[in-house]
Amino acid sequence: MIALTPQPPYYAVIFTSIKSNEDNDYNSMSDRMVELAKQQEGYLGHESARNEIGITVSYWSSLTAIKNWKQNTEHLLAQEYGREKWYDEYKVRICLVERDYDFHYTD
Amino acid sequence: MIALTPQPPYYAVIFTSIKSNEDNDYNSMSDRMVELAKQQEGYLGHESARNEIGITVSYWSSLTAIKNWKQNTEHLLAQEYGREKWYDEYKVRICLVERDYDFHYTD
Repeated sequence: MIALTPQPPYYAVIFTSIKSNEDNDYNSMSDRMVELAKQQEGYLGHESARNEIGITVSYWSSLTAIKNWKQNTEHLLAQEYGREKWYDEYKVRICLVERDYDFHYTD
Repeated sequence: MIALTPQPPYYAVIFTSIKSNEDNDYNSMSDRMVELAKQQEGYLGHESARNEIGITVSYWSSLTAIKNWKQNTEHLLAQEYGREKWYDEYKVRICLVERDYDFHYTD
């Protein structure tokens, strides 16, 4: 689903990744991280898609909220596992969303 | 592939979409749009993934480059078609990438 974010400005974290072949526990970890992120103060929503590469964009009210999420204990552990087993490569981009616009089809 | 972007700051356009069921010419339009973007001044790269939703992130050197791209005639045409048949819904977010970091697996 497209995230229902508030009026800009707010922050986005673009996480682009290439997975390794080891898939053990990846989906349950991924689901758990979404649940945890939702409980985090300043979480505004997220969007995720994967085929050759994976892109997950999470939206946040402030840089402090992003920093707190990055340092969440269980999330730190997942980041560790991610580097050890799940990902061949990833890139994280921290962005300020300055403007947005949308379109909804109506008959 | 993960886009090889320069040191921040630079800009990102996050395009999140839900496709309609009508698929006519979607892939050829999509490929053509990527080709056009690559020829545009200030284009830095892009990343794309789709399953339930689609996420395409394109990277740009400046807001002017993004504006020029948006006004590109063929792109405008694709936007028009997009509203008519390719997408049920989409959202576009214009972002300033402030920081990034990456990880590459090495044995």
